[in-house]
Amino acid sequence: MHIGFIGLGKMGFNLVSNLVRHGHTVVGYDINEALVDAVKAEGAQGATTLQDLYNALPEKRVLWLMIPAGALIDKVIDDLLAFMQPGDVVIDGGNSHYKDSLRRHAFLKEKGIGFLDCGTSGGISGALNGACTMVGGDPDVIEPLHEVFRQISVEEGYLYTGPAGSGHFCKMVHNGIEYGMMQAIAEGFEVLEKSQFPYDFEAVANMWGHGSVIRSWLMDLTRDAFSKDPKLDGIKGKMFSSGEGKWTLEAALDLGVPTPVIALSLLTRYRSLQDDTFTGKVVAALRNEFGGHAVEKK
Amino acid sequence: MHIGFIGLGKMGFNLVSNLVRHGHTVVGYDINEALVDAVKAEGAQGATTLQDLYNALPEKRVLWLMIPAGALIDKVIDDLLAFMQPGDVVIDGGNSHYKDSLRRHAFLKEKGIGFLDCGTSGGISGALNGACTMVGGDPDVIEPLHEVFRQISVEEGYLYTGPAGSGHFCKMVHNGIEYGMMQAIAEGFEVLEKSQFPYDFEAVANMWGHGSVIRSWLMDLTRDAFSKDPKLDGIKGKMFSSGEGKWTLEAALDLGVPTPVIALSLLTRYRSLQDDTFTGKVVAALRNEFGGHAVEKK
Amino acid sequence: MHIGFIGLGKMGFNLVSNLVRHGHTVVGYDINEALVDAVKAEGAQGATTLQDLYNALPEKRVLWLMIPAGALIDKVIDDLLAFMQPGDVVIDGGNSHYKDSLRRHAFLKEKGIGFLDCGTSGGISGALNGACTMVGGDPDVIEPLHEVFRQISVEEGYLYTGPAGSGHFCKMVHNGIEYGMMQAIAEGFEVLEKSQFPYDFEAVANMWGHGSVIRSWLMDLTRDAFSKDPKLDGIKGKMFSSGEGKWTLEAALDLGVPTPVIALSLLTRYRSLQDDTFTGKVVAALRNEFGGHAVEKK
Amino acid sequence: MHIGFIGLGKMGFNLVSNLVRHGHTVVGYDINEALVDAVKAEGAQGATTLQDLYNALPEKRVLWLMIPAGALIDKVIDDLLAFMQPGDVVIDGGNSHYKDSLRRHAFLKEKGIGFLDCGTSGGISGALNGACTMVGGDPDVIEPLHEVFRQISVEEGYLYTGPAGSGHFCKMVHNGIEYGMMQAIAEGFEVLEKSQFPYDFEAVANMWGHGSVIRSWLMDLTRDAFSKDPKLDGIKGKMFSSGEGKWTLEAALDLGVPTPVIALSLLTRYRSLQDDTFTGKVVAALRNEFGGHAVEKK
Repeated sequence: MHIGFIGLGKMGFNLVSNLVRHGHTVVGYDINEALVDAVKAEGAQGATTLQDLYNALPEKRVLWLMIPAGALIDKVIDDLLAFMQPGDVVIDGGNSHYKDSLRRHAFLKEKGIGFLDCGTSGGISGALNGACTMVGGDPDVIEPLHEVFRQISVEEGYLYTGPAGSGHFCKMVHNGIEYGMMQAIAEGFEVLEKSQFPYDFEAVANMWGHGSVIRSWLMDLTRDAFSKDPKLDGIKGKMFSSGEGKWTLEAALDLGVPTPVIALSLLTRYRSLQDDTFTGKVVAALRNEFGGHAVEKK
Repeated sequence: MHIGFIGLGKMGFNLVSNLVRHGHTVVGYDINEALVDAVKAEGAQGATTLQDLYNALPEKRVLWLMIPAGALIDKVIDDLLAFMQPGDVVIDGGNSHYKDSLRRHAFLKEKGIGFLDCGTSGGISGALNGACTMVGGDPDVIEPLHEVFRQISVEEGYLYTGPAGSGHFCKMVHNGIEYGMMQAIAEGFEVLEKSQFPYDFEAVANMWGHGSVIRSWLMDLTRDAFSKDPKLDGIKGKMFSSGEGKWTLEAALDLGVPTPVIALSLLTRYRSLQDDTFTGKVVAALRNEFGGHAVEKK
Repeated sequence: MHIGFIGLGKMGFNLVSNLVRHGHTVVGYDINEALVDAVKAEGAQGATTLQDLYNALPEKRVLWLMIPAGALIDKVIDDLLAFMQPGDVVIDGGNSHYKDSLRRHAFLKEKGIGFLDCGTSGGISGALNGACTMVGGDPDVIEPLHEVFRQISVEEGYLYTGPAGSGHFCKMVHNGIEYGMMQAIAEGFEVLEKSQFPYDFEAVANMWGHGSVIRSWLMDLTRDAFSKDPKLDGIKGKMFSSGEGKWTLEAALDLGVPTPVIALSLLTRYRSLQDDTFTGKVVAALRNEFGGHAVEKK
Repeated sequence: MHIGFIGLGKMGFNLVSNLVRHGHTVVGYDINEALVDAVKAEGAQGATTLQDLYNALPEKRVLWLMIPAGALIDKVIDDLLAFMQPGDVVIDGGNSHYKDSLRRHAFLKEKGIGFLDCGTSGGISGALNGACTMVGGDPDVIEPLHEVFRQISVEEGYLYTGPAGSGHFCKMVHNGIEYGMMQAIAEGFEVLEKSQFPYDFEAVANMWGHGSVIRSWLMDLTRDAFSKDPKLDGIKGKMFSSGEGKWTLEAALDLGVPTPVIALSLLTRYRSLQDDTFTGKVVAALRNEFGGHAVEKK
């Protein structure tokens, strides 16, 4: 199949290689021309404008976006509308908010253009060697693409999740779970680290990755991280986040679902970005007010 | 009434003044002799040894301890046992663990000595001007002391809570609630502080202290703190704790009571004492492993 | 001053009485005519249509809305626009989202109409006897109204919080704190209730309300609740919420503020509305899968 | 090697089969004689008393306990002391508290008897086919047993964790992480379940188990659970716990480690065992007191 691929960052680049390896004819585009050149070295065609990319594809074009969520996606869709025709299909493979995907689906459908929201998991290595893809959209639009999603995913790692929006919603929740699992693992290792026992963290993570109830890819990655820096001395504990955990919590709030672990995983990340907190100052000041407890001056 | 008072720190000193003001004959003792001198200036008698203190009291001695929880209390009781006689009463006015109080009560009861566990709230000013006291112990032991507790407390601020241990348990839970209330107030002010609006925190705290649903002594103290340092720029947000919040959570765990707010108030304090966390390092390392997300190097 | 008052529910009715008591000429309107009759008995004038209410006021009309947050407010403003003139002022005294207030302020300002967002705390009794009011808006708009807000509030219970939106934002955070304080108090009493000690909850709440660090109006109300039903046997523990706690958490998420206690207070309320949870089923099923732990069948 | 195995429940029975399959001569004992007969059918020898079991073993006996944590272990060790001799080794393969293991290690060491604390993970199937074992104890005691632990574990699934206590501490933390991971997964599925999308939970769990970041044994088990009961309609969401999550949190509290996710996973389990809560009643009563909000009567 011919596929136009827009966005050749870490995930996009590897997905293109993956598609090429499965025999697809991919035309890759990125505003960074070096990435276009690089993708050509992987066997894809390159395009230096969206128009070029579009023109290089046969009818019923498949336009796969792998670009940061948000306004940029609306911008690209808007640019593509200058030449897109009924029967074309836009796949948003990024981490878009499912409500945006619902909106884009409805907007494009009116013009006869298909829209699929494709959540992509498995990290950078998965994008190359076999991802996990969860895709929502209209049945007739996805029908001719099932095989492609199946090919780029590990066996059984592809699921058509249902109507438009359900793919990105599913990926959002996946990431919410991911926040919780990572925080649980991390808390456990901090308990080990503060304990009286001289654990070898890499060895523990490796052992827990083999045969335990908590064996998981994240545990394997924990071992890998410790193998490079046994006590993680070289890095700071700043936990950035790219939005999906927040969206999961917001969705939970809207749906009335109590999700304490996902909530706390997110709030703990926010806390890690502050060196000191106003909350802490207020509590410290209050303890001083009523109990005369000493306050640490700055 | 004659009262032997052991421990003349911030709380103890003020309680002695309070007792003296209500006409009681107080003999004060502290290992710090300067405090003994100071308390004499308040109208109390001073003692430089426990034996002196003991000898200065008439039979059916009342020995009021206001010293740090833990081994020191056992030590003092042990020292007092050298001369205590049946009919004497020990009052532990500090923040002892209720299980210690249950143990001490049983131990002293065997010797015919009464034991009362007295939780004292209201801060330093309350100790002087009218505290809040919650006291557990045997009915016949507390009977002659009801009036004393009533006098040193604000009106309706004294309660005989029931059997031995119930006073300190009640005070422990009081402090657990205190942790939660303080954290709630502090979080609210951090939301104000991070908002787009240029709030005057002292003015807000003052207004909330008058007529609102959340009016409270802690809100008054919040106003006082902001009146001294409008944005708390001068202090660090280190939230120390002296154990009662932890005990409340441990009791809740033993009793199977879900107390998320008290738990998080405590854990947030622990977090404030760390500049960086191992938990954060693990999560940051994991994000780097699977997603290539940048890690901040130290 | 002449004031048109729209919405005569529990809060509105009492605020009208409060205003009348302070010598203002109030015209009250509600879709429920019985409430209009009732408010006339309190010394206010009544209106049976918005137009009547509007016509009964002198120029530079003050239109005070005390109606449920959301679309109804836009509807009433829209209806009022049929006759409102530049120089008029709309006061939204309800629990509107501050972003709605920012929008309404800008919308009305374009038409020369003032808008004040007034957060009102203190409950039903406060509305009658002295509320706590926090009001945002343009300085020139609020200038002639300072005295009115001061009169209906308890002494020092009124604050002009700053620009438009800041009043409702402040009230929102107030409610977030309120959620946390209530949950902290409630958790504490559940620990008492599950403990080995036979506490008299009304007596404990009353004592804690006098002289303790956690003395507060909410503690007074806790005592009042127990005075009516000593163990709350007659009611269910369903904790409904009307939105402001959720908004506070959402604002905190947007601002990157870690607010674990407010978050958990809200999620605990959500949990209380479920008899059983899907989360619980999944965990129970998992424990059965790996450990053969028994599952309770329905 | 000859091994005396005490406790033939779900885990113990399968471990015996596992040991027999690896060529060891196992003598099995349980107070339930039917289990002794059953284990004989698996190729083990049976013993009907501890003395029989002991006598059936050659010198430097290895006594492997797989019995519930707590007093029973002390009882069995006490009974064994009637005949144990220096050079014997006791392995506690259950979920004992690490402080108990430290105590038992010291106690037995004085008598010349070795003690190993062996955390065993992997569930019932792992016990049979390859477990995950983390073992603490003295180096000279474990030396001759490394190979046995390696054999009964999956490849790389055995770790000598260090000094006495470190095995059970490690297992305790493993279970704490397990609580967090399970709760994270479960919350995610509840968000899916309450959403507008008609997800096939088994299909989602299966897909997430293949190639995603959150692929894990627990996700595989989630799929298995849904394969048997697609919406878990047949079971209740009661989340029992057997203590290790509580111990992890208690250890974290003692060590000053903030573990919000492990804490909330545990508290959420406690909550699931209550049909209604006193906490909820207090909050509901308070909302009624200040706001006149309706309360649901029982």
